[in-house]
Amino acid sequence: MVVINPFWLSGFVDGRGSFYIGIDADPVFELGFQVLPEFRIICCDEEPALLYSIRTYFRHGVVFTNNANCTIEYRVREVGALYSAVIPFFERYPLYTRKKFDFYCFRDVIRMMERKEHLTLEGLEQIKKIKSKMNKNKDEDIVRT
Amino acid sequence: MVVINPFWLSGFVDGRGSFYIGIDADPVFELGFQVLPEFRIICCDEEPALLYSIRTYFRHGVVFTNNANCTIEYRVREVGALYSAVIPFFERYPLYTRKKFDFYCFRDVIRMMERKEHLTLEGLEQIKKIKSKMNKNKDEDIVRT
Repeated sequence: MVVINPFWLSGFVDGRGSFYIGIDADPVFELGFQVLPEFRIICCDEEPALLYSIRTYFRHGVVFTNNANCTIEYRVREVGALYSAVIPFFERYPLYTRKKFDFYCFRDVIRMMERKEHLTLEGLEQIKKIKSKMNKNKDEDIVRT
Repeated sequence: MVVINPFWLSGFVDGRGSFYIGIDADPVFELGFQVLPEFRIICCDEEPALLYSIRTYFRHGVVFTNNANCTIEYRVREVGALYSAVIPFFERYPLYTRKKFDFYCFRDVIRMMERKEHLTLEGLEQIKKIKSKMNKNKDEDIVRT
């Protein structure tokens, strides 16, 4: 198990992490949509110990292997964990790349979800607007493709 | 200009950096080969300020834009700079991914070059062996492609 330095982790997320808001059509929900936030870090599949150490650091999330493209991912989707662990971490150990803009948007959405505003039509529309501004930087392409 | 935290920089290099040894055929050199070491960080072309800040931190290297694939790169090739600035940095602020293995190989080669051993047949052969073990981790593919 690797002992994670939080500043190192912030830098690694600037290189390999992402903040994503999914809005999926789902008739189970009253408004017809489900909001699905996700913080993730993608590595090659040779780094499981590192990602499990990051999971231990945050005390939340899951690590899983994507055999299709030989990657391993750490991800956190649960709103409570994002609100209580992930958001405060990046407020204390800030990002330096343009990914920090995605983080600010992500934080706004998580705070709205914590207040259950994503379950109102007005809140959902606002989240859609925020989402439309996110993940525009090309860093994502460099890491993902 | 961004004030760079060294632990953050170590994490960012774990995500986006690489250590590379080139061995190019060149009849100008007595042995017929030139050894070309390179430390580099690749970002999307939206991050010039960040890479110039990293350049300022190391006090060596160059930043240039690769228009062909919309990336911007920071790189250090000069052996003296690698020996005096880059190598000591990663000894003090270690990498966590398997990229640290590449760093150890790279460090061995730079130390040999500092002692001019790359200009001997025995040294060149040893560097070829070290190079053959480097950059095997698939992280490179994730970042580069």
